[in-house]
Amino acid sequence: MRRPLLACNDQDKISAFLSSATTGYLGLTDNSEPYVVPLNFVWWKGAIYIHGAESGRKMEIINRNKRICFTVSENFGTMVNPVPAKTDTSYMSVMIFGEIEIVADLSEATAAMQKLLDKYVPGYFSTPLSKHHVDSYRSSMGSRTIVMKIIPKVITAKEKPLNEQRLFYKGRHVADDAGMV
Amino acid sequence: MRRPLLACNDQDKISAFLSSATTGYLGLTDNSEPYVVPLNFVWWKGAIYIHGAESGRKMEIINRNKRICFTVSENFGTMVNPVPAKTDTSYMSVMIFGEIEIVADLSEATAAMQKLLDKYVPGYFSTPLSKHHVDSYRSSMGSRTIVMKIIPKVITAKEKPLNEQRLFYKGRHVADDAGMV
Repeated sequence: MRRPLLACNDQDKISAFLSSATTGYLGLTDNSEPYVVPLNFVWWKGAIYIHGAESGRKMEIINRNKRICFTVSENFGTMVNPVPAKTDTSYMSVMIFGEIEIVADLSEATAAMQKLLDKYVPGYFSTPLSKHHVDSYRSSMGSRTIVMKIIPKVITAKEKPLNEQRLFYKGRHVADDAGMV
Repeated sequence: MRRPLLACNDQDKISAFLSSATTGYLGLTDNSEPYVVPLNFVWWKGAIYIHGAESGRKMEIINRNKRICFTVSENFGTMVNPVPAKTDTSYMSVMIFGEIEIVADLSEATAAMQKLLDKYVPGYFSTPLSKHHVDSYRSSMGSRTIVMKIIPKVITAKEKPLNEQRLFYKGRHVADDAGMV
């Protein structure tokens, strides 16, 4: 029996979560073998943008199969219960299913890189990223870097809200929770 | 060109990392479609143990294809550089490839559940978990819960150490780093 109450359909909440989360996990399929790689990313205009080297196993797989599952999750703490099997975790997670593609357009790639900088080093740079800079790093380094884009076909989200009264902290003991149902 | 210098072959370090990390991402393959689910886990005796509902899409996929990629990663911060494309992330990540199986033995399942409690609510319970408790939750709830085990065939790890002097913090500005190469 699934627990449909955990489903989150609040698009604004999903969008805010994807905007603030630091790391996403890109799942790929290499024939029948799964491959999951952690990545920085930015959620922008309804898509996930990432960047990375043009070579390596990730790209080899993508060149054969563009289907992806991109998962982002955050753990808000463990919630205790005197019944061990009722120990629980507060979290929010989002799964995005779709396809991944290389962003060939330099304007879009530059804008996505700017959004990545705005997310991971906000306020650090005094001038906007130039297309020239992005282009030179796309084409001239030993390892070319490219920008890729995930266009979601299906997004699902689950959430288990934190019950602060049950939050585990160091030193908390079951004897303190004798009255807990 | 890959950067092999990032590879980590220090088994003790990998083991310590897997012991302390909170969330793992289980990658599965459903025909040619990837599926990535975040999970609590414990690294014990050279295996990954998880627990969860016996029903649901994850189990449907596992029943068809037991191959997995289990990825654990931690982000230690963003490292700035006046050259935007040299902005970098400090992290450690471990990828485990292998197969997943249900733990049918009640003693092993109970021991793994105990290890999960020891990890997520250390010191909370005053008595060890009983086989009876695990068995009753395996067999009597509306949603049966089961313990599963991942036996690694291949483990790879990568690490980019943190350069503290480059660590981004709120308010840091490129003008402060004019002398940085």
